[in-house]
Amino acid sequence: MRTYNPEIEEGALYAALLHDLGHYPFSHTLESLFPRHEENTVWTIKHGTIGDVLREQYSVSEFLKPLKNSVVSGDIDADRMDYLVRDAYYTGAAYGVVDLERVVGNLIFEGERLIIGEKGLIAAQNLLLARAMMYPTVYFHHTAKIAERMLREAVKIEGIPLEEIRLMDEIDLVSRLRGSEKPEVRELMQAIDNRMLYKRAYCSRTELEPGTLGELETGLKEEFGHLALLDYPPKPKYEERNAFVKACDGLKRLSEVSPLVRSLVDMKDVHWRWYVYAKRDVIDAVNRYVSDFL
Amino acid sequence: MRTYNPEIEEGALYAALLHDLGHYPFSHTLESLFPRHEENTVWTIKHGTIGDVLREQYSVSEFLKPLKNSVVSGDIDADRMDYLVRDAYYTGAAYGVVDLERVVGNLIFEGERLIIGEKGLIAAQNLLLARAMMYPTVYFHHTAKIAERMLREAVKIEGIPLEEIRLMDEIDLVSRLRGSEKPEVRELMQAIDNRMLYKRAYCSRTELEPGTLGELETGLKEEFGHLALLDYPPKPKYEERNAFVKACDGLKRLSEVSPLVRSLVDMKDVHWRWYVYAKRDVIDAVNRYVSDFL
Amino acid sequence: MRTYNPEIEEGALYAALLHDLGHYPFSHTLESLFPRHEENTVWTIKHGTIGDVLREQYSVSEFLKPLKNSVVSGDIDADRMDYLVRDAYYTGAAYGVVDLERVVGNLIFEGERLIIGEKGLIAAQNLLLARAMMYPTVYFHHTAKIAERMLREAVKIEGIPLEEIRLMDEIDLVSRLRGSEKPEVRELMQAIDNRMLYKRAYCSRTELEPGTLGELETGLKEEFGHLALLDYPPKPKYEERNAFVKACDGLKRLSEVSPLVRSLVDMKDVHWRWYVYAKRDVIDAVNRYVSDFL
Amino acid sequence: MRTYNPEIEEGALYAALLHDLGHYPFSHTLESLFPRHEENTVWTIKHGTIGDVLREQYSVSEFLKPLKNSVVSGDIDADRMDYLVRDAYYTGAAYGVVDLERVVGNLIFEGERLIIGEKGLIAAQNLLLARAMMYPTVYFHHTAKIAERMLREAVKIEGIPLEEIRLMDEIDLVSRLRGSEKPEVRELMQAIDNRMLYKRAYCSRTELEPGTLGELETGLKEEFGHLALLDYPPKPKYEERNAFVKACDGLKRLSEVSPLVRSLVDMKDVHWRWYVYAKRDVIDAVNRYVSDFL
Repeated sequence: MRTYNPEIEEGALYAALLHDLGHYPFSHTLESLFPRHEENTVWTIKHGTIGDVLREQYSVSEFLKPLKNSVVSGDIDADRMDYLVRDAYYTGAAYGVVDLERVVGNLIFEGERLIIGEKGLIAAQNLLLARAMMYPTVYFHHTAKIAERMLREAVKIEGIPLEEIRLMDEIDLVSRLRGSEKPEVRELMQAIDNRMLYKRAYCSRTELEPGTLGELETGLKEEFGHLALLDYPPKPKYEERNAFVKACDGLKRLSEVSPLVRSLVDMKDVHWRWYVYAKRDVIDAVNRYVSDFL
Repeated sequence: MRTYNPEIEEGALYAALLHDLGHYPFSHTLESLFPRHEENTVWTIKHGTIGDVLREQYSVSEFLKPLKNSVVSGDIDADRMDYLVRDAYYTGAAYGVVDLERVVGNLIFEGERLIIGEKGLIAAQNLLLARAMMYPTVYFHHTAKIAERMLREAVKIEGIPLEEIRLMDEIDLVSRLRGSEKPEVRELMQAIDNRMLYKRAYCSRTELEPGTLGELETGLKEEFGHLALLDYPPKPKYEERNAFVKACDGLKRLSEVSPLVRSLVDMKDVHWRWYVYAKRDVIDAVNRYVSDFL
Repeated sequence: MRTYNPEIEEGALYAALLHDLGHYPFSHTLESLFPRHEENTVWTIKHGTIGDVLREQYSVSEFLKPLKNSVVSGDIDADRMDYLVRDAYYTGAAYGVVDLERVVGNLIFEGERLIIGEKGLIAAQNLLLARAMMYPTVYFHHTAKIAERMLREAVKIEGIPLEEIRLMDEIDLVSRLRGSEKPEVRELMQAIDNRMLYKRAYCSRTELEPGTLGELETGLKEEFGHLALLDYPPKPKYEERNAFVKACDGLKRLSEVSPLVRSLVDMKDVHWRWYVYAKRDVIDAVNRYVSDFL
Repeated sequence: MRTYNPEIEEGALYAALLHDLGHYPFSHTLESLFPRHEENTVWTIKHGTIGDVLREQYSVSEFLKPLKNSVVSGDIDADRMDYLVRDAYYTGAAYGVVDLERVVGNLIFEGERLIIGEKGLIAAQNLLLARAMMYPTVYFHHTAKIAERMLREAVKIEGIPLEEIRLMDEIDLVSRLRGSEKPEVRELMQAIDNRMLYKRAYCSRTELEPGTLGELETGLKEEFGHLALLDYPPKPKYEERNAFVKACDGLKRLSEVSPLVRSLVDMKDVHWRWYVYAKRDVIDAVNRYVSDFL
């Protein structure tokens, strides 16, 4: 990054490199069961061997600051530049081509604020658009979501404590679940391994009151156990919140200047739905149960 | 196209192939001086040898109908699918990657109406987005616009009649202008050939009344002749007008379903500006003249 | 494949799909410790649930024949067409772009023999060239080879029997080795996991007599145990053996027609070397030991 | 180039930029009728306005030296790096992907000699291979060769002198030929413009004695005039002549180290053929004439 923009401070490079250290196995899949991965990153830097290396040059508290740098964690950050373009390439998605050199080369740093020079405007806008397309088509692909929900259930039933899971990689976790003493866990893992994934038994765009949601979850659990899984995701946010553009007539929010970026606010509802997934032989029963419940 | 979607009628294929026959040299550059190229296409089909071939299978009036087919001339037409992806590839623009097979494969024909199946939604949306990005960055690139404006002036001064220009290709036209008897024409062509293009002497986002516009044009002509050229383009339209989407809850306009497509309406103002271009040695004088005039 | 060349028989498609069923974890890495994966594929088809499905349409012995089809196992086979292009894409190697449609579309089947039509000649030649470049740069990359040699040693020491390993996937194997009761196995796995790979302690292009090779191996084992690992690979064969080309003057071997393909025979020596890898702290001792030994 | 390899001297950059100044319209097409384009480049630098600019920093004779620099004119020169990769991209040929940064970054300059560092070996080899594939499939594509031969004939008949043609671009030339006073020239140009190209009437891989060749040419001219055109190309040379590689055991010729490069010597015969092209209605007569003659 610093080759293309020497204004980016060195600490930000290290922070960009290390900011995802705290991820649990399978990235964000298990994050709803444990503290957010960012807290884990801080824990790992403080307690892991990486901290010893960092302490040679920085105090840890000093180093934790660049982790909040807008290039490390913001609308137009190194993370997005990396994963969006990479994931588009490797999934073969017909979008996600972004002129990253142009984005990086046109970032201007004024204090805390991240500003995009006018020549980087369309490239930066493309980065946000790529994100808005990768989510519904790739990251929220229904097959991935079902498998993730099943894995989450297996981990929940297995009851792995934070101190263990934050040291596990994917191999440790899968192997542990495959060899679980609990038959439900083994059953869920076999279904994933043999690609006998659950199917959608119910789908809705109507939001539920927290109370209703809780009752539905409890009801499903009592009635069907691990055979019916509720997936009620938070609404995604595609809009930008902290990107500014240097236009001829002063500093503007990116969303003011770009109608396309402005429209991303409305995207959160477009593809949002909640689901109940179920094992194939109880799909009808589950559908009836949810329909009756609502 | 018919490989991917057998519903597309054969006549539409021929129409897609022939619809641009009527283009003048340098595509749309000269279109403001002559009848629209579509009229010319009809003339060419009626009077050219191509008409003889077509008449073996179709009556000409019958053939002119598929020229209006929504696959040949619409928001999601074969022309756009061709030129956007091709131009993005050849200019190296970091957008314009569109999954065309998916677009074509998901087109549904209900009478006159073009309908996009739900699985083609994001690909079709991408086509419209690619267009909204190619225009400001590639097609309306200022260097291209200046050269086009200069060429248009040379053609206007040379006074080539419709009967001649509609039979010319680029070689005929450039050669004719280079060898013109009028020194202004030769001068404009030499400036283009030697890449001594005019520069922007004035730029504005404020719309002008038709009267004011006419006066400014006349004034510039009297004062500077061919050395100052007004470029007051129409506002581009990026929005879709006739694309429908088959959603689970019935037929919807593409813009209803996609916030991104909806926002394209606002794009027409974002990049719109009018300019006065001038030869380098009169730039300041021209700028002063326009500023005083307004 | 059959879309591009309807002459390819259906059984060949299934065979192409299933021929790699018998692979051990980590592809060819462990193949020198166990029967070749092709034998395993046959075993899996005979004893696995896949066999039950196949038996609905084929007798197993009948099905095993297409496994030898030249499109499934030959110089220009579906396997190579798949993995070379895919691996080049995913490793970002600047070669491996092959016009596969042209290769497949120009395959001619005359009995057992695979023949390439003249129009497919350069594309087929490119496939063989891509292979000759992928091997030295990607598949035989020294980091990969060292890690593979270490893993092989861990599996050998652990002593996993064929009946177990042929049912394992990568997760089962790594997890088993990480949790091994033998400290050498755990040590090797930790070195791989922490990327503290062994380094090259010795490198040579001189072939060794089988006797000398055996003595060296035994000597190293006695002196250094699992800390020094001999890697004496067979010479790769890049040349084609069964591809024919239909030229205007009759059927010719591909290597007769293409000087480039002919030269592949000589490639086997160009990049071939044998190595001794060692843990960092014994590198010098190992180098001295091997030098003294030879 | 200097970004990737600072050893490359500045003069070589300018030379690389200017070395093709002397090309006639349509690149090498007309080179057999006039002095080689390199001589023209020198003439242009000496007499054109570009010379005035160069003389501000260099004496012209001093500047002509870098034109022979191995990076400007050699086996692994900037020209090839440019045109091969570019032409492959724009023609969509499934080869010609070369890791140019790696080639340039691994060039070593020892006096006059161009040496490739070991890490650049495969990339440099790929450049030579790409060339050996682009020639038969793209540059010597039969349609291109026929059109070029027809254009060459038109220029020959028109009799344009060197002083004129070296100042012409493609537009000047085509326009001049289209408007020629000689009916044969106009006829040849109309055939090209309407894509009614001549067809191959005769094809052979047998070399002809210079005397026989001359007689055949004269005979064809007398019998068929501009309706039959002999195309007897020199044998192409794909082999490298001046590229060295720094190997662990000293400096070697690239062809010594790479069997693939070595085999390029044999390529010159593989695709070589001579042809007689003829207007469609005399094809049979021409074929008979040539067959009888030989």
